[in-house]
Amino acid sequence: MLNELKIFSGRAHPELAREICSVLQVEIGRSEIIKFTNDNSFVRIYESVREADVYVVQPSCEPVNDGIVELLIMVDALRRASVKRITAVLPYFPYGRSDKKDQPRISITARLMADLLEVAGVDRVLSVDLHAPQIQGFFKIPVDHLTAIPIFAAYFQEKNLSDLVIVAPDAGRAKMARQYARRLNCPMAIIDKRRVANEEKVVMESVMGDVEGKRCLLVDDEISSGASIVAAANTLEKFGAAEIYAAITHPILSGMAPQRIASSPIKELVVTNSVPVPEEKRNGKIKVLSIAPLLGEAIWCIHNGVSVSKVFEKE
Amino acid sequence: MLNELKIFSGRAHPELAREICSVLQVEIGRSEIIKFTNDNSFVRIYESVREADVYVVQPSCEPVNDGIVELLIMVDALRRASVKRITAVLPYFPYGRSDKKDQPRISITARLMADLLEVAGVDRVLSVDLHAPQIQGFFKIPVDHLTAIPIFAAYFQEKNLSDLVIVAPDAGRAKMARQYARRLNCPMAIIDKRRVANEEKVVMESVMGDVEGKRCLLVDDEISSGASIVAAANTLEKFGAAEIYAAITHPILSGMAPQRIASSPIKELVVTNSVPVPEEKRNGKIKVLSIAPLLGEAIWCIHNGVSVSKVFEKE
Amino acid sequence: MLNELKIFSGRAHPELAREICSVLQVEIGRSEIIKFTNDNSFVRIYESVREADVYVVQPSCEPVNDGIVELLIMVDALRRASVKRITAVLPYFPYGRSDKKDQPRISITARLMADLLEVAGVDRVLSVDLHAPQIQGFFKIPVDHLTAIPIFAAYFQEKNLSDLVIVAPDAGRAKMARQYARRLNCPMAIIDKRRVANEEKVVMESVMGDVEGKRCLLVDDEISSGASIVAAANTLEKFGAAEIYAAITHPILSGMAPQRIASSPIKELVVTNSVPVPEEKRNGKIKVLSIAPLLGEAIWCIHNGVSVSKVFEKE
Amino acid sequence: MLNELKIFSGRAHPELAREICSVLQVEIGRSEIIKFTNDNSFVRIYESVREADVYVVQPSCEPVNDGIVELLIMVDALRRASVKRITAVLPYFPYGRSDKKDQPRISITARLMADLLEVAGVDRVLSVDLHAPQIQGFFKIPVDHLTAIPIFAAYFQEKNLSDLVIVAPDAGRAKMARQYARRLNCPMAIIDKRRVANEEKVVMESVMGDVEGKRCLLVDDEISSGASIVAAANTLEKFGAAEIYAAITHPILSGMAPQRIASSPIKELVVTNSVPVPEEKRNGKIKVLSIAPLLGEAIWCIHNGVSVSKVFEKE
Amino acid sequence: MLNELKIFSGRAHPELAREICSVLQVEIGRSEIIKFTNDNSFVRIYESVREADVYVVQPSCEPVNDGIVELLIMVDALRRASVKRITAVLPYFPYGRSDKKDQPRISITARLMADLLEVAGVDRVLSVDLHAPQIQGFFKIPVDHLTAIPIFAAYFQEKNLSDLVIVAPDAGRAKMARQYARRLNCPMAIIDKRRVANEEKVVMESVMGDVEGKRCLLVDDEISSGASIVAAANTLEKFGAAEIYAAITHPILSGMAPQRIASSPIKELVVTNSVPVPEEKRNGKIKVLSIAPLLGEAIWCIHNGVSVSKVFEKE
Amino acid sequence: MLNELKIFSGRAHPELAREICSVLQVEIGRSEIIKFTNDNSFVRIYESVREADVYVVQPSCEPVNDGIVELLIMVDALRRASVKRITAVLPYFPYGRSDKKDQPRISITARLMADLLEVAGVDRVLSVDLHAPQIQGFFKIPVDHLTAIPIFAAYFQEKNLSDLVIVAPDAGRAKMARQYARRLNCPMAIIDKRRVANEEKVVMESVMGDVEGKRCLLVDDEISSGASIVAAANTLEKFGAAEIYAAITHPILSGMAPQRIASSPIKELVVTNSVPVPEEKRNGKIKVLSIAPLLGEAIWCIHNGVSVSKVFEKE
Repeated sequence: MLNELKIFSGRAHPELAREICSVLQVEIGRSEIIKFTNDNSFVRIYESVREADVYVVQPSCEPVNDGIVELLIMVDALRRASVKRITAVLPYFPYGRSDKKDQPRISITARLMADLLEVAGVDRVLSVDLHAPQIQGFFKIPVDHLTAIPIFAAYFQEKNLSDLVIVAPDAGRAKMARQYARRLNCPMAIIDKRRVANEEKVVMESVMGDVEGKRCLLVDDEISSGASIVAAANTLEKFGAAEIYAAITHPILSGMAPQRIASSPIKELVVTNSVPVPEEKRNGKIKVLSIAPLLGEAIWCIHNGVSVSKVFEKE
Repeated sequence: MLNELKIFSGRAHPELAREICSVLQVEIGRSEIIKFTNDNSFVRIYESVREADVYVVQPSCEPVNDGIVELLIMVDALRRASVKRITAVLPYFPYGRSDKKDQPRISITARLMADLLEVAGVDRVLSVDLHAPQIQGFFKIPVDHLTAIPIFAAYFQEKNLSDLVIVAPDAGRAKMARQYARRLNCPMAIIDKRRVANEEKVVMESVMGDVEGKRCLLVDDEISSGASIVAAANTLEKFGAAEIYAAITHPILSGMAPQRIASSPIKELVVTNSVPVPEEKRNGKIKVLSIAPLLGEAIWCIHNGVSVSKVFEKE
Repeated sequence: MLNELKIFSGRAHPELAREICSVLQVEIGRSEIIKFTNDNSFVRIYESVREADVYVVQPSCEPVNDGIVELLIMVDALRRASVKRITAVLPYFPYGRSDKKDQPRISITARLMADLLEVAGVDRVLSVDLHAPQIQGFFKIPVDHLTAIPIFAAYFQEKNLSDLVIVAPDAGRAKMARQYARRLNCPMAIIDKRRVANEEKVVMESVMGDVEGKRCLLVDDEISSGASIVAAANTLEKFGAAEIYAAITHPILSGMAPQRIASSPIKELVVTNSVPVPEEKRNGKIKVLSIAPLLGEAIWCIHNGVSVSKVFEKE
Repeated sequence: MLNELKIFSGRAHPELAREICSVLQVEIGRSEIIKFTNDNSFVRIYESVREADVYVVQPSCEPVNDGIVELLIMVDALRRASVKRITAVLPYFPYGRSDKKDQPRISITARLMADLLEVAGVDRVLSVDLHAPQIQGFFKIPVDHLTAIPIFAAYFQEKNLSDLVIVAPDAGRAKMARQYARRLNCPMAIIDKRRVANEEKVVMESVMGDVEGKRCLLVDDEISSGASIVAAANTLEKFGAAEIYAAITHPILSGMAPQRIASSPIKELVVTNSVPVPEEKRNGKIKVLSIAPLLGEAIWCIHNGVSVSKVFEKE
Repeated sequence: MLNELKIFSGRAHPELAREICSVLQVEIGRSEIIKFTNDNSFVRIYESVREADVYVVQPSCEPVNDGIVELLIMVDALRRASVKRITAVLPYFPYGRSDKKDQPRISITARLMADLLEVAGVDRVLSVDLHAPQIQGFFKIPVDHLTAIPIFAAYFQEKNLSDLVIVAPDAGRAKMARQYARRLNCPMAIIDKRRVANEEKVVMESVMGDVEGKRCLLVDDEISSGASIVAAANTLEKFGAAEIYAAITHPILSGMAPQRIASSPIKELVVTNSVPVPEEKRNGKIKVLSIAPLLGEAIWCIHNGVSVSKVFEKE
Repeated sequence: MLNELKIFSGRAHPELAREICSVLQVEIGRSEIIKFTNDNSFVRIYESVREADVYVVQPSCEPVNDGIVELLIMVDALRRASVKRITAVLPYFPYGRSDKKDQPRISITARLMADLLEVAGVDRVLSVDLHAPQIQGFFKIPVDHLTAIPIFAAYFQEKNLSDLVIVAPDAGRAKMARQYARRLNCPMAIIDKRRVANEEKVVMESVMGDVEGKRCLLVDDEISSGASIVAAANTLEKFGAAEIYAAITHPILSGMAPQRIASSPIKELVVTNSVPVPEEKRNGKIKVLSIAPLLGEAIWCIHNGVSVSKVFEKE
């Protein structure tokens, strides 16, 4: 591809965008995003982007809807400025959990997001650990779907923990636990809880698989209030787990989540920087691994027309 | 149309939705809109809407982007719940001022909004005093474009003010002033100011037309910070206006706007309730006229397949 | 809806179509489907369908691709014959297992199917126990997604089996097992196997959860070669299960599947008639429950604009 | 861009196309446009255009509808001949004045034109002084919107006229007058007339701003019958203007327009050659400035992926 | 269909529209079509059309491109005025002869027409004797394709001519001749001529089939300059035909066509009124049969959801 | 075009794909196509195709519907693997004979095929001797339509047969016969048969044109059961033809076709290899000419942006 590579950032996670630029040794594209007094967002691109191959970094972060509309406006501005191609880099995909219609008269909002991105003019999407891999199928445009599992696996392999068991916090995460177990070559277990729809009250029931006296690694794609994962850790403790770790890709850590983690039996919570983890959310138990090298490498491949499969490596 | 009429409200302006329901003597549709702990919005419709003719009331109010995404999610939920037709009732249209590309590399966000609404599944739009009438052409779907000018005109006719002059606060509003002048059968004037792009600093220059010793009625489609209209009023005062009124359809009144109005030479600011005017924004100078009857009548016409032209009556 | 209800059948499963007609007390639409000597399919509709509300019954059955193209041709013929609305009734959805891109350079064929149906002119889809509920989101058009779980649950409740445990044959079916367990109010277990991609060789590993001395009910959405489910049954037997049942919605039963079941430790395999189970595939162990009443009721609701939620009842 | 630059002309304004080619030092593309005996237009391209970057010059000229259909046919022929990209060069945009729905049951024809161009296969549009800048938002594809104001401004600056006042012939042109006034750094005035819809009878009323003893420069985007601008000039004369000039981008000059100008108080009418001004329409008062250099430079920028903003310069 | 039936006419053939209205006993819809002084067409609908089932009559007549754009504008106006459904009634379809790409770099204009109609908002098309039946496949929307052959056949059956032979004027019309021959139960013949592309020079060669001493009926879909059909008649005369008739659906009769017919060996040319045949084109040899009853009956069927097949009756 | 040229083959005709590769001196792309036990097709591409210019060879062969769905899946996989452009190489186009709606309530399946290909992501089509040239207009995307007539003509010119007459087997093939006659510079004749719709029973009637004592060359686009062409040959024999040849582009030769040819008066049947002619279908009378050079040359032109017209040469 002869067209110039340019990376722009919305206001969701400029640190990540800058880190990716540093990996790729390009300067971040100059733009301005403000709000008018009527609360309308306004985006202006401050450099020529004609025929450029543009990547816009904007994971889903609070305020989520602001970030989405901002992204769409930026894409519209870029498209009307005659870019060659726009790739939306959404390490944490917005509304990934709204991926099915499991109640009457609700939205499949993850599909809606795909439609909004496509109609605004996005040509490709780059994301990490989608809540369900089927979300890729919500798009007509190509999606490069990366996973942070190898990053987490490398981190825990280095720890060289004996008697490790991968634990899914509920039946819905069993497949993800399977992927971790295969890569770390260890057994798995599943906590069987029951979650009441939309209320996020969690009732623990039992553990399927052997966790007594084991080191347990809870895995999930996203932690927001932290209530589920802490409840899972409590269950593991009750069932005799020796040590409890957690590896979770997207650290929303909303509200009291950091405090919940701090006072839980979890020894260490390992996350990526797919969304920002500001200083005030960090504490001694939270370890942040960067996905900027992963994203940078993928962008390099896409820009140069090289296969992303090796980076991709979704087992 | 044999299908049932149903009106739903987003969280932007439920009072207006209820008032419209009261005009139409229907009960408001039952729905729930919440935010999950990861800041994702969730919409659920609590009654069957199969084959219904549904109207969703959601003007553009702060937080604007939240309101837009909420609306799109609600529309997606309704569409997937097999409604017959969805009309988005947007008395104050989002991003109406971003209707052209008057700088390089910016978005025409009003067109983007039209595309988002259409792709989500909206079948019709009902709006009031669009910033530019061309916005109607941003849509493929039919738009019923109402105006509040007759409501304001009736209010001022009843005041029976002598020596009235309609004043446009800048050249861009000259056509709207012309419409008021024709309806109220009085002369007009235009303030010639110069606005530096995106900075909202306003430099007054002069007044074209005769305002000395006159009662001046400043007209505009939207008031947000109030800075422009107060500057316009100050100019009019400087040029000898006897009394200054203002008629503005959409009362955003952000930040210090109420205080600015209070301490300005404006005697009375008349607005509609196209967006909410909460108690704390109101003061003795602000008069709110309801557009619920106008919207209710238009919805009745649309539902029953009756011409909206008479309601429409854009002069 | 005033338009006439008409039901047509492709060649995939005319018995089911007839049974649905019998439930709804309508006559099946007259049509002809043949192959020309160049192996091109030809469809002709033999009665007027102008402005009719048409349902086409065509689950995915061998020869699968024939059935799909036939369905698309029939839809094209109906659309050009000016029907009001076309609902594709696909109790077993084609290519449901190709719902994600878990290897490089493969198709998300379930999404492709959604696009083909939409472009041919389908207005709605009615399906049962999709391989993943996210497939609903592959469609822009409304999908009514029914489940046969209540039918199976009623069947097993009547048996009144003590010490029942629901067993997922692998981690990917854990959520479905959870739904059965909730409805039958009993514990669950998961077989942890490892499947090598696309080769369908199955390596059993272990059982998470307690199955020794229990009556086990294996659940899945689809049985084709039977290899997986029989391997799962063998594992359960090895781990001391007292009795083994299986409830599987879609009985493809290809190749040696009936023989495999016959010689396996499975006591009874309960399936629906979402695809045909011809006489030669049946044996004493296979029990077929009809979903025609479920589909008939859903069609009645859709045609009459009545909520399908109660029928739907996907827990 | 490595693809070859090719410029084709419809039958609307081949002189302009040739002049642009001369600016760009390319030969005009060989094509044929004829009418069959059944009055159907026929277009044939006589040279290979595979993978070429093609520009089709076709402003809106009488017979307008012929020109539009011809353009669409040419675009279809080019697209089916496998061009890389098609830019419609429409210096005077068709149906720009039909940009809103200001009466019941009329078309927003400018939007319709956008849809026709997009569906035929146009990838970009290049236009000059659109009747309303919002028309850019009628397109999903990128539009480069140039202005002739700097050309006119340079012409009048060279004249070095003292006491110059820019005059808008009605309230709708106030914003354009503002742009001229800013660039020429002089005051402005507005004629307040009243135009009865669709009848083009014009009733003058008054002048807002100071014109007595001044040199007045009337500005507008388009002159067709000339009735409006001559009426405006008469008003200015009545109000004591010292000298009257007019700068109007698109010189339709239909019917008696040249004679009307000749016998009016207008001293000089300056126009561009966005549409042809044949010898018989010219007289001593009409001065034509070429926009071929402007268009040529813009095409060069688009073809080479260079920013058009400097050419654009819409203040 | 409960929605009101309304019929509008463009300016192409108001007599036919009125005749259809008279068949259906409805009043023609009130509308206005004018040209502004800049040669832009303007359409206004003068009665409410909300939720109406609208038919717009506009065959392709000179000036062809004017008629097409006018039709598209009218459709846009109707769609934005919230009609329920728009059927374009195009007895003579525009650009039907441009139905394939038989030279390099030309347009398939008949397909382009289909796209323009669809994008403007047409929901159905009604046409008569398309140049090629494949044109129906250029549309996604339903097309009702009628034929005038039964009307012509009835006319000639009544004449009770002995020794009748149907003659195709060239190989391309052989299939149409076959249809006539079957219906009139008589033999056929084909003139083998060679036509140089786009030049309409015609070189006769020979007659396949027996015409000597026979009454010959030349058949075609369209007569424009008349050169081809007269040349065919001359050939037939040379080969010994006893009497020569012609039946041609669409009587363009451009230029000298009426005179050519008058001085040719053709005894009678029978046509329909699918396009107007003004008084000055008529002469003693030209007989016009009305298709208004055929079109009226088809519209009645479409409006009432009744099968058009019997009217259709293509053979 | 700088992007790499890659050719893939479906399972329909790998020999042809390999032959084309050999013409172009490229290696065939590595891919796998299998069927799962539930009869679902599965495609995997085994080499990187990012930004490649890809051609997929898949003529319509028995099992036809399998081949179509396979092709669509392969296209989906390629598109999601980020190819630059996909050209479907369909020498024998699927469902070409279903190109019109000549009976009530049937499909125009050739148009449906065009829609399916476009929605799956095909960017261009390359085909040979379409049943009707209008099929090109069923596509929005560019179609390169080649003809095998020059290949056949060269073959027969070399034979140097005196007294040759081209014969169309029915009226519908008269135009194709005309093209052969022009190229071989000889007279033509037409067999006038009557075919009962969908039943393929053929009733011969007569021959138009002179065949007695002549060498006759029957021409057609496709031979499937062979019944029509053998019946035509029998008619020719009856009418005194001296020798009978046949030139037919697409040799389906289904069922008893080879035997029918063997025992017919046809001396030689010349076909292309647009579809496979396996050894068991061949006999001494069938001569196969390769179109791989024609297709290879066309692909080379498309890939390199060179005009295909000379290859095209559809007279």
